Amino acid sequence: MDEVKIIEIKKSVFADNEKDADALRQELKGWGVFLLNLMSAPGSGKTTTLIQTINRLKDKIRVAVMEADIDGDVDAIRIKEATGVPAIQLHTGGMCHLDAEMTRQGLDHLNLENIDLVILENVGNLVCPAEFDTGSSANAMILSVPEGDDKPLKYPLMFSVCDLVLVNKTDVMPYFDFDLERCKEYVKRRNPMAQVIPISAKTGEGIDQFADWLLHQVQTHKK
Amino acid sequence: MDEVKIIEIKKSVFADNEKDADALRQELKGWGVFLLNLMSAPGSGKTTTLIQTINRLKDKIRVAVMEADIDGDVDAIRIKEATGVPAIQLHTGGMCHLDAEMTRQGLDHLNLENIDLVILENVGNLVCPAEFDTGSSANAMILSVPEGDDKPLKYPLMFSVCDLVLVNKTDVMPYFDFDLERCKEYVKRRNPMAQVIPISAKTGEGIDQFADWLLHQVQTHKK
Repeated sequence: MDEVKIIEIKKSVFADNEKDADALRQELKGWGVFLLNLMSAPGSGKTTTLIQTINRLKDKIRVAVMEADIDGDVDAIRIKEATGVPAIQLHTGGMCHLDAEMTRQGLDHLNLENIDLVILENVGNLVCPAEFDTGSSANAMILSVPEGDDKPLKYPLMFSVCDLVLVNKTDVMPYFDFDLERCKEYVKRRNPMAQVIPISAKTGEGIDQFADWLLHQVQTHKK
Repeated sequence: MDEVKIIEIKKSVFADNEKDADALRQELKGWGVFLLNLMSAPGSGKTTTLIQTINRLKDKIRVAVMEADIDGDVDAIRIKEATGVPAIQLHTGGMCHLDAEMTRQGLDHLNLENIDLVILENVGNLVCPAEFDTGSSANAMILSVPEGDDKPLKYPLMFSVCDLVLVNKTDVMPYFDFDLERCKEYVKRRNPMAQVIPISAKTGEGIDQFADWLLHQVQTHKK
């Protein structure tokens, strides 16, 4: 099994996260690196989605992944083994989110000169990660079908801050009471600008569309 | 549609939550009220499970429910309509967890003299609620099959603090790569004392067992 670098993230000392996040965003822009902050509840399928997506992108752009978890290194190893791209594991030491300074601690371990896209897999949590700007170029989230179509009503901030909502596990739609149109309507209520892409990381449905979205973001960001 | 009481919870001013939680636990013991703190990730099926369980218990003991959510009142209304037991909605104002003082703010709106069991449906989140003792008599959590059997590895504290783990949505087990025995093994690694009950709030599997567990807790607590 591949070994991955595990970074123990220290609690942020910056008082003003917004300022720090803006500074990081500018810095990344200077490097020509697009940082996607990917959020979701636990078990929504973030890692499987990333593997599928990265395998469609890695011959076109240079991708790296930072996996944030309270404990464990399973996800970073999975990404590295299944895609071959650089993946590091961030341990949050029990903390429920990442802020800009914590994100920077992870980025310090990547060779940004040779990277176009960094995907940050944030801690599985629909509440706290939405409250902290990581300095990302864009925010995306995964809502999986078994969680229910009412989540935008219950976790308003998360849906408000996301540029893209992936609705994952569409393959099991027949076994759950999930109405995609209703879900889209709820998302729109929280954030009229958010795009919604239904995907199945298992069957591959919608993954091309997500990969195209990412590619477009990265290319536009470089200009 | 039934109207429910919505309580806007204020941020706790107590510096020492553990002390406050112990005091609340003693007080509840004095009232003969058993408080179950029920936690889970978003969309694991807490409310549906409660409806099924309460309908099996309500002729034997007097039950009340506190639904904690960042926003909305859907869950409290659902509980009240489907079971007829008192249900109030706690709004956390964006906060990701409840502590003992916040729990007390909710309990103040229930008539504890006439209640044997209060179930607190905590904010949908596998991280923060585990860090704050609510003053509950016991902690339980729901892990749903679509979330994956590896969650005890990723959210160690949550599984460490729970006396009972309900594995919900067993009806969709055939469509997911979820190994119940492996899951039990992971739970045991975090907490050798935790009981695991597989349930399906949809088909009713295991709900009798959960109801019996609760009844036993309430009866033992009264002695």
